[in-house]
Amino acid sequence: MTTPRRGPRKAQEIFATTLALLAEHGYDGLAIEVVADRSGVNKTTLYRWWPSKDALLAAALRDSNALEFTVPDTGTLRGDLRALIGLIRDLLTRPPSAQLVTAALAAAPRRPELGGVVQAFLADRMARERPVFERAVARGELRADADQVAIMDLLGGAIWFRVLLRSGEAGDRYLDELVDLVLRGGAP
Amino acid sequence: MTTPRRGPRKAQEIFATTLALLAEHGYDGLAIEVVADRSGVNKTTLYRWWPSKDALLAAALRDSNALEFTVPDTGTLRGDLRALIGLIRDLLTRPPSAQLVTAALAAAPRRPELGGVVQAFLADRMARERPVFERAVARGELRADADQVAIMDLLGGAIWFRVLLRSGEAGDRYLDELVDLVLRGGAP
Repeated sequence: MTTPRRGPRKAQEIFATTLALLAEHGYDGLAIEVVADRSGVNKTTLYRWWPSKDALLAAALRDSNALEFTVPDTGTLRGDLRALIGLIRDLLTRPPSAQLVTAALAAAPRRPELGGVVQAFLADRMARERPVFERAVARGELRADADQVAIMDLLGGAIWFRVLLRSGEAGDRYLDELVDLVLRGGAP
Repeated sequence: MTTPRRGPRKAQEIFATTLALLAEHGYDGLAIEVVADRSGVNKTTLYRWWPSKDALLAAALRDSNALEFTVPDTGTLRGDLRALIGLIRDLLTRPPSAQLVTAALAAAPRRPELGGVVQAFLADRMARERPVFERAVARGELRADADQVAIMDLLGGAIWFRVLLRSGEAGDRYLDELVDLVLRGGAP
């Protein structure tokens, strides 16, 4: 797939440096000058592509290979949702993405622009997950009137809540149970 | 119900001041000296009951009237869950609790002790919500093998995710849909 180029030649190195600095030093410790220095790129090159720290961070979150994910296509809705939430669990619990998420969440309430970056990231993910639900409706595995965004809020939110707020484990059996609940419900 | 006294006579004023300072100035701006001053209580009285800022904050989150909630008992599991998540939605969107939550979440990743306070608060809430599920199992509205904590992770997590990360609305119809999904599932 050919997409318009969204950054300079060394974009991936720049994104990696940006995310590494965020994970290490938090949002306040992230500076375009340091990114330029560490990636061996001229500061003006960075500013030409991304006029602000938030623009650079948004691009890094969206386009870095480090956060790349492939939308699963296992043949069943149950399999696809289970794979998707396995990816979310890994994102929230494994380095370096876990540190990134913590740094971004800590900074977001004080920096409305960063909140916008997080929203854009999540909206982009949701848009890419849509085919999972469209295929499921076509296969007769999901009610056509089910709120697909609500399903992702439930599944994604449960893992965020458990891992980040309750400091609980999100093991494989727990993930199976989440998918089971949203597909067949808790009623007998 | 008589419970052992958990603080000095002016405990509720002290808790209110503690939470107001947290909401206004964030965790770093919360200081026991200022709480004492504003509540008209001697600093040593505060330290006698709560040896640290985190101990005071934990007590305020657990015992303040401002965060008090009554576990619903509507006669049906659907009604109880809908009422519970209405309370969670209000907690996350209305002042002053919305500001409190934002301040606590912003500080928690940098302050492991505060993470412990949040965990204790959530564990206390979950323990108080247990009867909702026990009654539902007794009435035959919930499978006995359904993971009750996972149900609250799904419902509570969805609202956290939507309101705090996606900056979305959690209106009444959305809340109805969440309960519907976890009770009857998205499968046809």
